[in-house]
Amino acid sequence: METTLREIARIVGGTIDGNPDTVISGLAGIQDAGSGDITFVANPKYEKFIEGTGAAAIVCAPDIAAPGKNLLKLENPYLAYAKLLRFFNPPPRQPGTIDERAAVGKNVHIGKHVTIYPFVTVGDDCVIEDGTTLFPHCFIGDGVTIGQDTLIHPNVTIREGCVIGKRVIIHPGTVIGSDGFGFAKDGPQYCKIPQIGNVRIDDDVEIGAGNTIDRAAIGTTWIQRGTKTDNLVHIAHNVVVGEDTVLVAQVGISGSTKVGSRVTLAGQVGVVGHITIGDDVMVGAQAGISGSVPPGQIVSGSPHMSHRTWLKASRSYEKLPEMRKTVHALKQKVQELESAIKHIQEDND
Amino acid sequence: METTLREIARIVGGTIDGNPDTVISGLAGIQDAGSGDITFVANPKYEKFIEGTGAAAIVCAPDIAAPGKNLLKLENPYLAYAKLLRFFNPPPRQPGTIDERAAVGKNVHIGKHVTIYPFVTVGDDCVIEDGTTLFPHCFIGDGVTIGQDTLIHPNVTIREGCVIGKRVIIHPGTVIGSDGFGFAKDGPQYCKIPQIGNVRIDDDVEIGAGNTIDRAAIGTTWIQRGTKTDNLVHIAHNVVVGEDTVLVAQVGISGSTKVGSRVTLAGQVGVVGHITIGDDVMVGAQAGISGSVPPGQIVSGSPHMSHRTWLKASRSYEKLPEMRKTVHALKQKVQELESAIKHIQEDND
Amino acid sequence: METTLREIARIVGGTIDGNPDTVISGLAGIQDAGSGDITFVANPKYEKFIEGTGAAAIVCAPDIAAPGKNLLKLENPYLAYAKLLRFFNPPPRQPGTIDERAAVGKNVHIGKHVTIYPFVTVGDDCVIEDGTTLFPHCFIGDGVTIGQDTLIHPNVTIREGCVIGKRVIIHPGTVIGSDGFGFAKDGPQYCKIPQIGNVRIDDDVEIGAGNTIDRAAIGTTWIQRGTKTDNLVHIAHNVVVGEDTVLVAQVGISGSTKVGSRVTLAGQVGVVGHITIGDDVMVGAQAGISGSVPPGQIVSGSPHMSHRTWLKASRSYEKLPEMRKTVHALKQKVQELESAIKHIQEDND
Repeated sequence: METTLREIARIVGGTIDGNPDTVISGLAGIQDAGSGDITFVANPKYEKFIEGTGAAAIVCAPDIAAPGKNLLKLENPYLAYAKLLRFFNPPPRQPGTIDERAAVGKNVHIGKHVTIYPFVTVGDDCVIEDGTTLFPHCFIGDGVTIGQDTLIHPNVTIREGCVIGKRVIIHPGTVIGSDGFGFAKDGPQYCKIPQIGNVRIDDDVEIGAGNTIDRAAIGTTWIQRGTKTDNLVHIAHNVVVGEDTVLVAQVGISGSTKVGSRVTLAGQVGVVGHITIGDDVMVGAQAGISGSVPPGQIVSGSPHMSHRTWLKASRSYEKLPEMRKTVHALKQKVQELESAIKHIQEDND
Repeated sequence: METTLREIARIVGGTIDGNPDTVISGLAGIQDAGSGDITFVANPKYEKFIEGTGAAAIVCAPDIAAPGKNLLKLENPYLAYAKLLRFFNPPPRQPGTIDERAAVGKNVHIGKHVTIYPFVTVGDDCVIEDGTTLFPHCFIGDGVTIGQDTLIHPNVTIREGCVIGKRVIIHPGTVIGSDGFGFAKDGPQYCKIPQIGNVRIDDDVEIGAGNTIDRAAIGTTWIQRGTKTDNLVHIAHNVVVGEDTVLVAQVGISGSTKVGSRVTLAGQVGVVGHITIGDDVMVGAQAGISGSVPPGQIVSGSPHMSHRTWLKASRSYEKLPEMRKTVHALKQKVQELESAIKHIQEDND
Repeated sequence: METTLREIARIVGGTIDGNPDTVISGLAGIQDAGSGDITFVANPKYEKFIEGTGAAAIVCAPDIAAPGKNLLKLENPYLAYAKLLRFFNPPPRQPGTIDERAAVGKNVHIGKHVTIYPFVTVGDDCVIEDGTTLFPHCFIGDGVTIGQDTLIHPNVTIREGCVIGKRVIIHPGTVIGSDGFGFAKDGPQYCKIPQIGNVRIDDDVEIGAGNTIDRAAIGTTWIQRGTKTDNLVHIAHNVVVGEDTVLVAQVGISGSTKVGSRVTLAGQVGVVGHITIGDDVMVGAQAGISGSVPPGQIVSGSPHMSHRTWLKASRSYEKLPEMRKTVHALKQKVQELESAIKHIQEDND
C-alpha cells in the first residue's frame, strides 16, 4: 500500500513539518524503519534515535525539532501509531456469504455483506445487521440481535434473547447469556431460580476469549459502550459495567454489582455482589473488593484499602516476623525496667 | 397462563388466608404487581408495601396480617417465589428430534423425546436417556451415559467414558473429562501419566459456563447430587465433591481433594490437593485452603485461618505501617528509659 | 496384552532380579495386584506390602531386597510406573481419515494418517503433518501449521497464522491466537491496536482445557518445548515461556513477560507484564509476582517475597490482632515508666 505523508495526516491528524508529498508505504519501529516507512516517537527515551533513523517520516510530539526530517507533529503519537497500524493492517475482507453448511433458523433478518461460516447455528427470530461476521462453531440463540460490523469469533455461545451492538468484537470460546447463579434454599438443597433476563452488550465493546457473562435473573446484565474485557473474565447476573471500562484477565464480578465508567480492574481482581464501584476507580491486581468504592479512588488489597495504604502495609508485611521479635524483646525489657524501677523506689523509700 | 390461588397453593404449599378462587395470571414484584399478579414478601423491609400493592395475592410468612388481602402463608416465601417463577416461566419445550446434521456414532441408545441439535457429535456406545437435550456444537465422547431430562448447552465437551446423571444442567463452553494434570519427572522433563479414569456427575447437579472438570488418573472424579458450580470453576483429577455443595465462580480445587456436603467455597478460592474439607464448611472469597478443614468451620484468608481471626487480622493489616512506627518509637523510648535508670542507679550507688 | 518381565525391562530400563520370563499382563497397585500383574513401589511407606503382594513382579528402587520375588530395579520407579501405564493403556488408534462433514479450505497440506473428525474447520493454506488428529468442532484458522502426532481436542480454536509443534496435546475449549489486549488511549476511549503477531507452541507441549493464549501484538507469543499448562491458564501477548515449565491451573501471565525454563507457577498465580522470571524459579499458589525474579528462587505472597519470609510472615499474620494489643499495652506501660522515672528524678534532685 503506497500513500503520502499528506494522506497520513488526513487519517491521524497533526501538522506536517517537511514534505507532505513524501511517499509512505509502511510502518516500522524507529531503529528498523527504512526508506518508505513512517515511524513514531511516543516515549522521550527514543528521541535520540530520530537523528539516525532511515524512516521517510516521523510521527512525534509537537515540541520535537529535527531539521531535515519529515515530521508529523501531534499530541498523542502512540494513538497515531495505533491508527497507522490499523491503516497498514486492515482486517481481512470477509466473503459476505452465508455458507450452506450453517444452520440458520426461521424468520432471521440478515443484512448486507453478512458472513456466516460453516457450522454456525443461528436460532429463530434473530437479526444480524450489515457487515457482521459469524465465525465457525458459533451458537446464536433464538431472538438474538447483533448490530453492524460486529465480529463473533469461533466457538462463541450467545444464548437466546441477548442484544449485541455495533462494531463489537467477541473473542473465541466466550459465553454470553448463560444462566445466572441463582438458587433458593429448600432445606439443605437448592431450588433453581429461572434466569429469565438477558445480556446487552453496547457498541464498540470488545470481549476477550473464554469470558462468561451471565444473563440477568430478571432484567439485563449490561456492558456499556466502549468497555474492553481481557480473557477469562467472569461477569455475574444483573451486573452493569459502564462505558470505557477495562477489565483485565481473570477478573470476577459478583451479581448485581454496578461498575462505573472509565474504571480499571487489574488482573484477577474479585468483586463482591450488590455494590457500586464509582467512575474512574482503579483497582490493583488480585484485589478483593468487599464493599462500594467512591468515584476516583485507587484501591488495592484483599479486602481492599487505599492503594497508598496497601503499598505501605504490604511493605510492612514481610517485616512482620522481625517486628514480632522486636515486640517480644520490648516486652521483656519493659518488665526488666519495671522491676528495676521498683527496686529503686523501694531503695528510695 | 391463568390459574387460581388454590392451584398455586397446591404447587408451593402454604395456607390461604382469603379467597382461594382468586384468579392468578402472573408473578411480579410487590411495587409493580397489578390485578391478576401474585407477589411475595421474603424480606421484612418490604412488608410496608403490602397495604398499597395492587397484587391479587401475596405470598408471605405465617405471621403477616393484612385484612382484606389474599394471602398465601408459608415458612419460606423466597423458595415459593423461585417455584412460582419456574411455574410461570417453564423452559421452552424441545422438539424431541435428532437433527440430520448431527453426527451420531454406532451403538448409541437414544431414549424418548431426546433432542439432538445440528452439529452435535455423539460417539459410539453412548446412552442418552429420555427427555435429554444436546444443544449445538456439543461433543459427547465414546461410551458416555447421560441420564433423563438433562440439558447440555452449546459448545460443551464431555469426553469418553463420563457418566452424567438425571436433571443435570451443563452450561456452555464447559469441559468434562479432560486429562488430569499428571506427570512423572524424567530428569528435567515431564513424562505424561495417562489419565484413564472418568468423571461422574450425579443427579440434579448444575455446572456453570466455562468449567473444566478433569477425569481421574485412575478411578473417578465425582460431583455428587445437587451440587452447583458457578462459572470458570476448575476441578482437578480424582476430586470428590459432596452433595448440595456450592462452588462460586473461579474456584480451583487441586487433585485428590475431598470436599464435603453442604460446603460453600466463595469466589476465587483455591484449594490444595490431597486434603479433606468437611461437611458444612464455609470458605470466604479468595481464600487459599492449605490443609484439611474440619466439618462446620468458617474460614478465610490465604493461607486460611478461622474467619473470625481473619476479620480481625485483616483489619489490623492496614494499621501495620502505623504499628511499625509505634514499635520503632517504643524501642527508642525504652532505650532512653534504660539509660535514665542506669544514671539513677549510678547516682544512687 | 501379554508380555514378559524381560520385555518390560526393555521398555522402562532397570535390572531384573528374578525370572525374566515371568509373564506380565497388567499393571496394578501393590495391594490390588494379582498373578500376571506388575506393580511398583515408589514411596518407602509401601515397602511393607512387598512381602504380601500377589504381583508377578515389582518395580522398585535398587536397594530393595525381597528374596523369592521378581524385582525390576531402577532409579525412578514412579517414572517407570508412568511408562508402564502408557504401555498398558495406549491411546486409541485414530481412523486416519478426513470426515466428509469437515470443512477443509484451499491449499491445505494433509500428511499421512491424519484424522479430521466431523464439524472441524480448517482454513486455507494450512499444513497438518502426519499422524495428527483434529477432534470435532475445532477451528483451525488460515495458514496454521500443526506438526506430527499432535492431538487437538474438541472445541479448540487456533486462529490464523499460529504454529503448533510435534506431539503437542491441546485440551478441549482452549483458545490459541486470540487478539492480545492492546489499546491506545484516545481521550477517555480506547483505540484497538491490531494484534498482527502469532502464537508458536513447540514440540511436546501440553496445553490444558479452557486456556487462552493470545497472539503477539507484533512478533510471537512463544511456549517452548516440553512445557505443560493446567486448565484455565491465561497467557497474554508476547509472553515467552521456556522449556519444561509447569503452569498450574488458573495462572495468569501479563503481556511481554519472559518465564524461564523448568519454572513452576502454582495455582492461581498472577504475574505482571514486562518482567523476567528466571530459570528454575518456583512460585507458591496465589502469589502475585510484581517484578522480575532471579533464577532459582522460591517465592510466595502477593506482592511476592522469598518463600521462607512469606512462611514466617503469614504465620505472624494471624497473630496481628494480639500483637496490636501487646503494642498498645507496651505503650501505656512505657508511659507509666516514664512518669515513674520522672518522679524518681525529681525526688533525687
